[in-house]
Amino acid sequence: MPPSPESIAAVLHRADASLDASRERLFELLRIPSVSAKPDHRCDCERAAEWIRDQLISLGFRADVRPTTGQPVVVGHHASPTGYRGPHVLFYGHYDVQPPDPMELWHSPPFDPQLFDGPHGKRFVARGAVDDKGQVMMFLEALRAWKEAAGGIPAQITVLIEGEEEVGSPSLQPFLVANKTQFTADLALISDTLMWDIDTPAITTRLGGLTQAQVTLKGANRDLHPGLYGGSALNAIEALARLLADLHDADGQVQLPGFYDKVRPISDAQRAQWDSLGFDESSFLGKVGLHTVTGERGYPALERMWARPSADINGMWGGYTGPGSKTVIAAEASAKISFRLVPDQDPHEVLEQFRRFVADRLPPDAKVEIAGRAGTPAIEMNLSSPWVRAAQTVLAEEYNKPAVLKGTGGSIPAVVLLRNVLGIDSLLMGFALDEDGAHSPNEKFEQRCFHHGIRSHVRLLAKFAGG
Amino acid sequence: MPPSPESIAAVLHRADASLDASRERLFELLRIPSVSAKPDHRCDCERAAEWIRDQLISLGFRADVRPTTGQPVVVGHHASPTGYRGPHVLFYGHYDVQPPDPMELWHSPPFDPQLFDGPHGKRFVARGAVDDKGQVMMFLEALRAWKEAAGGIPAQITVLIEGEEEVGSPSLQPFLVANKTQFTADLALISDTLMWDIDTPAITTRLGGLTQAQVTLKGANRDLHPGLYGGSALNAIEALARLLADLHDADGQVQLPGFYDKVRPISDAQRAQWDSLGFDESSFLGKVGLHTVTGERGYPALERMWARPSADINGMWGGYTGPGSKTVIAAEASAKISFRLVPDQDPHEVLEQFRRFVADRLPPDAKVEIAGRAGTPAIEMNLSSPWVRAAQTVLAEEYNKPAVLKGTGGSIPAVVLLRNVLGIDSLLMGFALDEDGAHSPNEKFEQRCFHHGIRSHVRLLAKFAGG
Repeated sequence: MPPSPESIAAVLHRADASLDASRERLFELLRIPSVSAKPDHRCDCERAAEWIRDQLISLGFRADVRPTTGQPVVVGHHASPTGYRGPHVLFYGHYDVQPPDPMELWHSPPFDPQLFDGPHGKRFVARGAVDDKGQVMMFLEALRAWKEAAGGIPAQITVLIEGEEEVGSPSLQPFLVANKTQFTADLALISDTLMWDIDTPAITTRLGGLTQAQVTLKGANRDLHPGLYGGSALNAIEALARLLADLHDADGQVQLPGFYDKVRPISDAQRAQWDSLGFDESSFLGKVGLHTVTGERGYPALERMWARPSADINGMWGGYTGPGSKTVIAAEASAKISFRLVPDQDPHEVLEQFRRFVADRLPPDAKVEIAGRAGTPAIEMNLSSPWVRAAQTVLAEEYNKPAVLKGTGGSIPAVVLLRNVLGIDSLLMGFALDEDGAHSPNEKFEQRCFHHGIRSHVRLLAKFAGG
Repeated sequence: MPPSPESIAAVLHRADASLDASRERLFELLRIPSVSAKPDHRCDCERAAEWIRDQLISLGFRADVRPTTGQPVVVGHHASPTGYRGPHVLFYGHYDVQPPDPMELWHSPPFDPQLFDGPHGKRFVARGAVDDKGQVMMFLEALRAWKEAAGGIPAQITVLIEGEEEVGSPSLQPFLVANKTQFTADLALISDTLMWDIDTPAITTRLGGLTQAQVTLKGANRDLHPGLYGGSALNAIEALARLLADLHDADGQVQLPGFYDKVRPISDAQRAQWDSLGFDESSFLGKVGLHTVTGERGYPALERMWARPSADINGMWGGYTGPGSKTVIAAEASAKISFRLVPDQDPHEVLEQFRRFVADRLPPDAKVEIAGRAGTPAIEMNLSSPWVRAAQTVLAEEYNKPAVLKGTGGSIPAVVLLRNVLGIDSLLMGFALDEDGAHSPNEKFEQRCFHHGIRSHVRLLAKFAGG
């Protein structure tokens, strides 16, 4: 039996009344430093997985923590309610977070969540506040409101929460392949993306792909004294600097051979839709203290971000980096580089292009090691699916304005795996803001977004149940 | 009364017989990790100074450890023997050492000195073995041999051992200015330079100068997510890489405006003398695993090293440099750079040229901080001084072949200060080999060089005393 308008109102009311308790539960999860990139946080990742499993059990799920080749995943199943005719929903999220470095830039400890006042009301500050613990908890809190106010969860739901999203989800594919039959949902629901702005909801319909590489360039067999070798010997840092300086030409185009060969131009209709959003790039850059666009010349901002690939140096190091001075010619230097991809670019091909780019520029006497990971291809959603339309309806009800259909350069490897391994398309309904600082010090999540996120999920479940 | 040939022979014999004890005393000093660049080694620097003071007292010196604005200096005075008509000798050296990083490349702990066998016999392996503790101890052991075998030290000697040579001797100038009258010697004797090869002694007559700078380039006010900002925002690492890639042109010429303006060409006679040394650059590079000369095009190797300036990146870092991956656009990146100077280049002017070089290339939105230290100008010795001639005689006796008069790109700030503040010229008689790896992991000193060094100083003191 579809839920009545009265019961939906009661569940929404319950969500409002429980907001403080919902936040306290999120804060418990935020206190677990589940950093997947660092091996010494392995136990914290397990603790976070167990904590989520216990939440699911308390909501009436059959749930357990399952081992993988890397960090464990949490899997929960909630049976179909009697007479349910809606879709079987697979909710995907991740409990792992980015490393908090650089630590000295945090104003409060990253794993001691704080409730601060800001221009939009209360905000939560902690690593993972918005990416993705806060957004996972919105869904679980929506389920809790249904259970507490309506006596039960109105839809058939499988939950899959992994612990390696921030390192490219390397173990998810083998896990899904080995457990295919347990994930037979009609759609995947994911909350790990942005709103348009704090008053305007959004559904993300284009995701970027990702390829990563670490390059180490080696010169002499030991660090050398510039007083002796300064006029003669290869300096690994300078050689690597030259190579990285070549990554883009003066117009901001990535110089990997063939990098743009498979990049499709967007349609005029798409360009017109994006132009109509009136994106203000100077205010977007202004928020992080910048004024000048430095990307690929000749493309409007949203097209550059959503439909053009990029190459980004994530880190570089070599030689003496401690306090004081040490006059050496460094024997080796390294850099981490990521490539943001668009639909039809093959991550393996891009990694090969990078190897060729480096080999072509290697100075005499330099040796090179490249540890690469061809990650995830980019992806586009089907805009006419009934689930996208359901989400549009729900968000319009909650915000009293239509949701923007947007793209993002960010990648969610799971979206590709869910489609390729399980044949399931994803619905990306996220509540983060670009200024939340996912991956940065002082990451935050607005309580207003958290609250609307819970309520939107309450409504979406009602819609799936025919309400 | 000048020492007799018999007494000189007895002192040399004593030096031979005491070699094991001499080495053990050196090993005691090498066990003190007196790294001047690192603030947490302050106490170790004090311990090293006190250890040397105690050695001097045991040799009959009035000696004490004197505070400075930085690490303390050791000062010792030994009165003129009755009837001494030779020069008042100021022996200068340093007890501080370079940081041992990168630690993982050492085959034995850097501050646990080891006696290993090598192609030239025994060698000492430890940080500071050759630079400069081993060479300071050669002189003290020569004094000890005189005291023990001839009943006294035959010359008037002042000893000055500082603790900041490896960081550019910042406190030495104020110390010398404040204590001028205590340092009224006729020449400074320094052992902190190279031999030509293990069988061929050398006197160094040209020293390079040094200017150092640390540059930090800042972009956005926080690290950014490439998924959002990858097509739009300044990447501090890439901007710094471009800047550093510009440091040299394709011919290896340093691109600082005006960098070469004051560089004098060397005389044809000088060039002919250096050419006659038959320096084998490919074997010099081969020893460190390199084959290709990468310096300034169009100059022979020795001229490039001894009479042409260079710019060297000593270290660089920015963004995420830990294990695993973190996709960020770094908000800032830094590099340490040193400039090796030749006579007539002004270190302050070079620092200004570097500031201009950076300012000229700063991309929009980038902010820059440059912490510079204009260090030491380069210097040339007077080849016709009687002390240089005395050292030539002594080295020819000890090695049965003439000493090479060589240059070096390395700088010894004290040599400039001794001349400018005290009016004292230096005699640089060193016993290091270029393959000893000063400043590198597994720094070593050949026992054969240590032994000849003690004996050469025994002879030099006899010569000063008229023997």
